[in-house]
Order: sequence, then structure tokens, then C-alpha cells
Amino acid sequence: MQMGWQWQEPSFVWFRDVSPRDGLQAEKMILETKDKVQLINQLTQAGVPRIEVTSFVSPQWLPQMADAEEVMAAIDRKPGVVYSVLVPNPKGAERAVATKPDEMTVFVSASETHNQKNVHRSITESLQGFRDIGAMVRVHGIKVSAVIVTAFGCPYEGVVSLSSVLDLAQRLQELGIDEITLGDTVGVANPKQVANMVGAFREKLPQVEMALHFHDTRGTALANLLAAVGSGASKFETALGGIGGSPFSPGAGGNLSTEDSVYCLMEMGIATGIDLKLLLYATQFLVEKLGHDVPSRVFHAGGKMIPVNARH
Amino acid sequence: MQMGWQWQEPSFVWFRDVSPRDGLQAEKMILETKDKVQLINQLTQAGVPRIEVTSFVSPQWLPQMADAEEVMAAIDRKPGVVYSVLVPNPKGAERAVATKPDEMTVFVSASETHNQKNVHRSITESLQGFRDIGAMVRVHGIKVSAVIVTAFGCPYEGVVSLSSVLDLAQRLQELGIDEITLGDTVGVANPKQVANMVGAFREKLPQVEMALHFHDTRGTALANLLAAVGSGASKFETALGGIGGSPFSPGAGGNLSTEDSVYCLMEMGIATGIDLKLLLYATQFLVEKLGHDVPSRVFHAGGKMIPVNARH
Repeated sequence: MQMGWQWQEPSFVWFRDVSPRDGLQAEKMILETKDKVQLINQLTQAGVPRIEVTSFVSPQWLPQMADAEEVMAAIDRKPGVVYSVLVPNPKGAERAVATKPDEMTVFVSASETHNQKNVHRSITESLQGFRDIGAMVRVHGIKVSAVIVTAFGCPYEGVVSLSSVLDLAQRLQELGIDEITLGDTVGVANPKQVANMVGAFREKLPQVEMALHFHDTRGTALANLLAAVGSGASKFETALGGIGGSPFSPGAGGNLSTEDSVYCLMEMGIATGIDLKLLLYATQFLVEKLGHDVPSRVFHAGGKMIPVNARH
Repeated sequence: MQMGWQWQEPSFVWFRDVSPRDGLQAEKMILETKDKVQLINQLTQAGVPRIEVTSFVSPQWLPQMADAEEVMAAIDRKPGVVYSVLVPNPKGAERAVATKPDEMTVFVSASETHNQKNVHRSITESLQGFRDIGAMVRVHGIKVSAVIVTAFGCPYEGVVSLSSVLDLAQRLQELGIDEITLGDTVGVANPKQVANMVGAFREKLPQVEMALHFHDTRGTALANLLAAVGSGASKFETALGGIGGSPFSPGAGGNLSTEDSVYCLMEMGIATGIDLKLLLYATQFLVEKLGHDVPSRVFHAGGKMIPVNARH
């Protein structure tokens, strides 16, 4: 995003909605299993192509995710839709395999301090775990993707260098990871940094699938998505309603809202395969079940579909 | 913002903070004159280069602005800062002249229906009024700027064509208007539309100063600013805290927040002359006086200046 930087948008953008996992894990109220299932089914019906269903972490750490197996067993899976689960370690992966996800997501921090605070392991120890997980799940035809959290800045170490993120991405690629998501976990990325990161990543690791994950802590999430899209990125993780914020990442705000992202891209003529009206029905359901409002602006404004009189 | 579109950011972006006018006019609670004065003085101290102080509309229509003369008389004016006032008609301009603003802002809608509903006149009648206002105020060395409201879409007529906006801008230029602001009054603009509009405006009217004004009704305001900045635009109207929303424009959400815009550009290395920390003190004051929260995300997150421990 320097002078002369050229816009190169994709014609289609793929969203992975992470509200059932990254969204709900920040909620104090534990949703009933049947409501989680209905939420995921509504996302499927709205045409969301990728859904992060749950995570296989210890119920002691995250009681919200204690019903991971039940949720995976009960959802209606639509052919072509990718249902993924998050796993923190080989033990979680072992539980997850039995539920037959399409994809398993592991995560590691770009900064040592955050990785220690988050999972009580060094980065190298996390990577060793990914090797074991890969060996365990690939025989079942399950893809493995990795999220590099705090890729744009760390609440403990501050600035995270672009080169350290690229080096970590290369180590992940060498482990056979199928896709890498760059996560702005605490919402400190700016559009120029995002464009530089996407450009550098695509140049260094052109054969690796790349996705991005933004939090809206400082209001920059949609602008960051725009900068990434203009740099050719076509995969994003967002959350219905803009809910979320990691309980273990100080300062993390809500996720970039799926509705707001889909609306903006749709208006720009970029396809997502998602029906915004059906998506907003899902938000309505989510809000009713959570019992509180959500940050999404389009949910409140109703896109442009709602006639003027209804907007008063 | 088509393939091959080239990024061409300015090195400095000028903000006009419109919170004392566009912001406060949407508030039910009438702020005391001394608080309005303190708010404007705090904006001045934070380095905001242009401030919309008040509007000279009939107090019957907008009781919030009944003290326009008192506010103009009481503020501390810093040399170099542009203090502007909004006027709806020649009668308002007559009142305003006596208070010696640096600039006077008039406004007209891009759509006939919105202009009729907003000011009960046709577009041509509005322009006739601007001619009279120009003749009246220029002898006093006061500049005249115009806002084209609903420039990106109208709540009554829907789509507003780019060519109709450019034609109206040309008529304004022929009337001797010094600067034209394109207003997304109801927050329906998208980044691609903004980039196209900025490019077409600069090509058709290269000698006319251009500014932009976004509302965040659908969460797109900062992304729209980013698209405009990348198209070479360097003047924006924003409101402290992201307050606002015209009481006469159905569906209008709050203004783009000054703090969030300044923070994002600062992080991108684009200068604004504004001290974010002092600006956030002004937001704190505004929130206390209004007695309610404001949409700005940076106000809540505290930029990156606040240490992690304080962000819990």
C-alpha cells in the first residue's frame, strides 16, 4: 500500500464463520446444545461455505465447549460446506477425529510470550504438537489449518515483525499445514500493515493457502479486510454479529462481523455465495439466545433491503 | 477501484470535526453553552485544524443550536484553525456573518426528494440562495463551502447517479463555491463507489477542493475513508466519538469517528496534526456531558497508548 500499489481484488471471497467457536467462547452464558446446532444450521442455510463449529479444549478451561462432540453429531452437514474444529493439542485432536470434521485448526502465537500465556508451551513445543496432530488426522482425510495468532501485534511484546510471522509460516508449511490464517487477535493491525503482510506472504509462500482474521477493537477491522481484499486475499474468518474476543487475550474486542463484511463486499460486486437476508435471520436468532445486543452495524441497519419506513 | 487501480495516498489528511454541529444536533439533551465552548476549545487544543462550530438554523427547528451566537463569541480561536458554521438559507447567513466565522457551509441534496423533505425547496431554489449568500459573505472575507448531501444514495430515491452528483458539483463551482463536501448522509456508500466518485470528481473538477463525509450506519465508514484516501482525497468531515445522525434523514447512523480515523491514519504513517491523546480527553469530556456512551472504538480501546494492564 505504497504509492503505485495496485488493486487486485478476487472475484469471490470465502468466509469461515467462527461465531460458534471464537464468538461463543467469549460469552459468559452457556448456550444450550440445541441452540448451537440451530445457529450452525442457519449459517449453513445462509450459504456460509466454511463454519468453525466448536473447539476440543478441556471443559475445565472452557465450559462453553464441553458439548463439542454432541454439537458435531447433531448438525446438518451440507455437502461442499467445510465444517472445522479448533484443537489446542494432540489430546484434543484425538477427541476431534472421532467426530469427523472436514478440517482441524491448530494455533500458535507469533510471539513467545503470548504463546506461553495462551497455551503454556513454547512456539517450538506447539509446532511439535502440530506434527503429531498432522500424523494422527491426515490418515482420516482431515485437512489441518493453522492460525498464527497475534500476527499483527502482541499485547505483551508489542510490535511483531513481518519477518518473524513469515518465518513461522514457513515452519508451518514445512509441517504440511494446508492453510495458514493470520490473526489480528487483539485488533491492532492497520490497513497498510495488512496489505504489506498479504503481499509479502503471497510472494514468499505462493503455494500456501492464506486467510485473515481481524478483531474490531479499534474500529479498523473492515478497513483491514478491504486492504487485504485489494491485495488479492480471498479467505477470511469472521463472526456472526461481530461477537467474540478471546478471554485469554487482554484487550481483544469482538470479531469482524460476518454480516458487515458480506454486505460491504456485495455492494462492491464481490461474490460470497452468502444470502445476507438469511444471515440476518441467524443473527436475530443469536441475539435472542444470547440475550444481549451484538456489534454488527448491518444487523441494526438492515442492509439496504429494508424499506425506509421500516428503518425509522 | 477496478483491477489495476493505483493507490495514491496524500501525506497529510485534514479533518474538520463536526461534532459540535452534526453531532450535537442529533442529541435530545441540550448541552449548556459553556460545555459546547469547552468541547470546541478542547478540539482546538488537540490540534484539529478545522471545526464546525454550530449552525444558524431557526431555534424552533433545532433548539440545540439556539445559542449559535453565544458559542461563536465565547470560543478561543487559534490562528490557523478554520472555524466554520452551517447556514440553511440567506437569513441564517445574515445572523452568521456578524459572528465572523472563517467559513460558511451551505448544503443541498443530490436528490430532489431529499432536498424537498430537508429544506422544503427545489435544488435550483437552494442554489439561488447560495448565490445570495455568497454575495453577502464574500465581502467579509468569509469562504463558502457546500455539502452535497445524499451524494452516495438517498433514503427516498435510492441510487444517486455519479453523473448527477458531478453535474451538481459543477453548478456549485459556477456559483463560486470554494470547497465541495460529498456527504454519505445515510451511510449507504461502499468503498468501490467512493473510489470511483473521488476519481471522477478530481478528473472533472480538478481545481475544486473536495472533502468527504461518511456515516457509519452499515459499518463501512472507515473502509470508505480508506478508499477515498487511496484515491488521493485529503479532506474529511468526522465527529468526535462518532456521534450524530441527522434527525431529518431516516436511517442515518452516527458519523465516522474522528478518533478512529486519526488513529488508523496515524498507524499508517499519514499525518493529521492531531494529538490522539488530547482528542480522547475531549471525548471523555463529551461523554460525561452527554451522559451516554459513544460509538468510537478507539475511545473504548484507548489506541495502543494504554498499557495492557489498563485495558483489562
